[in-house]
Amino acid sequence: MKLLIDHVDLLDLETLEVEADVAIAVEEGRIAALGRAPDGFEPERRLDAAGCLALPGFYNAHCHSPMTLVRGWAEDLPFDRWLNERIWVAESALEEEDVYWGAALAACEMLRAGVVGFADHYFWMDQVARVVEESGMKALLGWCLFGTGPEHEVGGASFDTVRSFAERWRLAAGGRIRTALAPHSPYMCPPELLRRMARAAGQLGVPVHIHLAESDEQVQRSREQHGVSPVAHIAALGLLEPGLLAAHCIAVDERDLELLAREGVFVAHTPKTYMKLAMRMAPLARQLDAGVRVALGSDGPASSGDLNLLEVMRLTGLLQKLERGDASAAPLSTLLRLATVEGAAALGFEGAGRLAAGAPADIVLMRTDRPHWIPRHNLAAGVVYASHPSDIVHVIVDGQVVLEGGRLLTLDEERIRAEAERRASRMVGAKMSQVRTYRG
Amino acid sequence: MKLLIDHVDLLDLETLEVEADVAIAVEEGRIAALGRAPDGFEPERRLDAAGCLALPGFYNAHCHSPMTLVRGWAEDLPFDRWLNERIWVAESALEEEDVYWGAALAACEMLRAGVVGFADHYFWMDQVARVVEESGMKALLGWCLFGTGPEHEVGGASFDTVRSFAERWRLAAGGRIRTALAPHSPYMCPPELLRRMARAAGQLGVPVHIHLAESDEQVQRSREQHGVSPVAHIAALGLLEPGLLAAHCIAVDERDLELLAREGVFVAHTPKTYMKLAMRMAPLARQLDAGVRVALGSDGPASSGDLNLLEVMRLTGLLQKLERGDASAAPLSTLLRLATVEGAAALGFEGAGRLAAGAPADIVLMRTDRPHWIPRHNLAAGVVYASHPSDIVHVIVDGQVVLEGGRLLTLDEERIRAEAERRASRMVGAKMSQVRTYRG
Repeated sequence: MKLLIDHVDLLDLETLEVEADVAIAVEEGRIAALGRAPDGFEPERRLDAAGCLALPGFYNAHCHSPMTLVRGWAEDLPFDRWLNERIWVAESALEEEDVYWGAALAACEMLRAGVVGFADHYFWMDQVARVVEESGMKALLGWCLFGTGPEHEVGGASFDTVRSFAERWRLAAGGRIRTALAPHSPYMCPPELLRRMARAAGQLGVPVHIHLAESDEQVQRSREQHGVSPVAHIAALGLLEPGLLAAHCIAVDERDLELLAREGVFVAHTPKTYMKLAMRMAPLARQLDAGVRVALGSDGPASSGDLNLLEVMRLTGLLQKLERGDASAAPLSTLLRLATVEGAAALGFEGAGRLAAGAPADIVLMRTDRPHWIPRHNLAAGVVYASHPSDIVHVIVDGQVVLEGGRLLTLDEERIRAEAERRASRMVGAKMSQVRTYRG
Repeated sequence: MKLLIDHVDLLDLETLEVEADVAIAVEEGRIAALGRAPDGFEPERRLDAAGCLALPGFYNAHCHSPMTLVRGWAEDLPFDRWLNERIWVAESALEEEDVYWGAALAACEMLRAGVVGFADHYFWMDQVARVVEESGMKALLGWCLFGTGPEHEVGGASFDTVRSFAERWRLAAGGRIRTALAPHSPYMCPPELLRRMARAAGQLGVPVHIHLAESDEQVQRSREQHGVSPVAHIAALGLLEPGLLAAHCIAVDERDLELLAREGVFVAHTPKTYMKLAMRMAPLARQLDAGVRVALGSDGPASSGDLNLLEVMRLTGLLQKLERGDASAAPLSTLLRLATVEGAAALGFEGAGRLAAGAPADIVLMRTDRPHWIPRHNLAAGVVYASHPSDIVHVIVDGQVVLEGGRLLTLDEERIRAEAERRASRMVGAKMSQVRTYRG
């Protein structure tokens, strides 16, 4: 379909300069032209976006989207009680169809916040794939496997289940779905399982998405059991390949960082979870200085509370400035790059996440006329340090308009909210009032 | 006027329990009843708030509201360049009427974020007082004075100017306006000026609002010049009185904290500025443990980017958990208390900032049906860790509806945005496109 988006302000994410009153021509899912429409371009559809800033779509590089169902269920608790007494107890009541509704709820929230793609790591992932297919989003999906032996079955999964999932949905939905193999972590998976995962990933031509080096305790245990750090351990097992998506990498030394950089690994940085669960802050500056590619993620909503990448950018910038005692640290252009083009690359959509002729048409249109934006000395600063998800009025993914004028076109939001809330109540064994909708 | 707010969910800020479908009766600016309307209560006006959560209004305990005009004008710069090369240069072009429009813009933003009152510290404060009068908000207003001698004049002000301002507007606007004397800080004001301020405050029966102990350098300079810490220095000058509002108090030792606690001082905690300007984080836990009363503030939008108290609560909680390595630190009830009842007390509105029969009717009604709220296992967690200002649909201050269905009733928002942007452009000598309004 030929789509013309008219009268937008265009922000250059590197120079931070704004070009006013620009047209964006979209054809066959890609940006055909920026500036003015090509001669003879006859749009089938026009989107008047006067008063809107155009940005590339945001990418969430690490999530457990169905865990929306347990958000708010474990607040202000130490990590072990959070996990053992609350999250795992609630998840033990999880049924396969719950995964669909939890992920659909997450998709509503993410699209409303300008997130066009996400890397997900959970169970019963066919359900998440259905949500991605229907919503129009993009995703890198991996069915999480952990266990004490190669044949161990948890979360409805065996090795064959997760491998066949990765094969079944690989490049589905017109290429919007990419798949990964998703061993939980080196501390939850025996070496033989990790080695099999690495081999299967190579055979299928898909990446691995894993949790890595989250704490000093994990590093110490790895040294005791395997003689090396978690990074070196998975390197020896063949997992450290270009495109590996490693969430967190908090407890890493210079040698680990060198390995991650050399092998072209993507690190997913999820600061809200590090703060809310009182983990340590990941060493983002050291990671970037070492040449490691980093993208931003929300992590699961059970730990982060929400799925707002605008806030993740903001927290990343604020924390870097504070930690380094330097107000010029983590400049706006870096934060915007990590949340867009680096996020897209981390999901395997290399070349997406930017507004340029030829790039996939993943476009967020954000109004900048609300009081918290005024005056507009610096629109990039407005995006990172003041904007709200509700400023986003239109979202386009691969040329398809999925949010228009604040209305989701691909998902039945009201039904999703009601189903998700009903199922969440069942999981925690509580009677929860059904969704009451404000009728203003 | 008799107002009935119907069908709300009521959150108890201590127990975090929710009572569903409650009525709030408001009479003569106060809450007459909570639960159901008193017998014979005949409202002149009804506000149907079905699907909304009722919360007390939020109070912003430290702000420089007219500095909205320079927000975004100095990004990613070290503190001294931020101040000397950008903020002070822009402020040197400030005209008296600019203050009105900058503060009016801030009022629009704050009311939309559920902030019903703010403590402001700036110049030409009659203009800010006009905004407070017109907007229906509450405020503690102090005209900032700094100088090298007792007769020094800066920012259009002399000692007599700021003293007569405090007298002129004291308890104006039906008691919604309180005034303060506002020496900038011990490092910007000579001892004799501070002593005169303390005496004048005592005579007028108003508090002092001051910046205090923001850095180790300030402490060191105070010890060199006065032989004691900034806290002890202002104590010796007679400023450490009950009700003193001291912004920041970052570089404080146990003796300082003991003094602040004993004298009934309020500390304003403004974490977003500490992060964005790469100052140190204030020791909130030590302050609270020492028995100091603390309220939350945005600081000026030039340093914080915006005026969103919901985000300030969130940052406060996340930072406390991270810093203390304890996910149970800064529990929801504490964060909500600091942003409401403690904020009100810090502004001199002791007893406000809570929903209780007899309390001033400062009420925020927030819809909880958007995807980022679902499921509603814990509404308090939704408020602190997921809500957006756009969830707020109605705001009531002293019984007056000032925001209804997302529309500001007391301020001409469109005109304010255009005037503020025009004046901001003039101040920085830049040509800025006029506000373009999104017409969706």
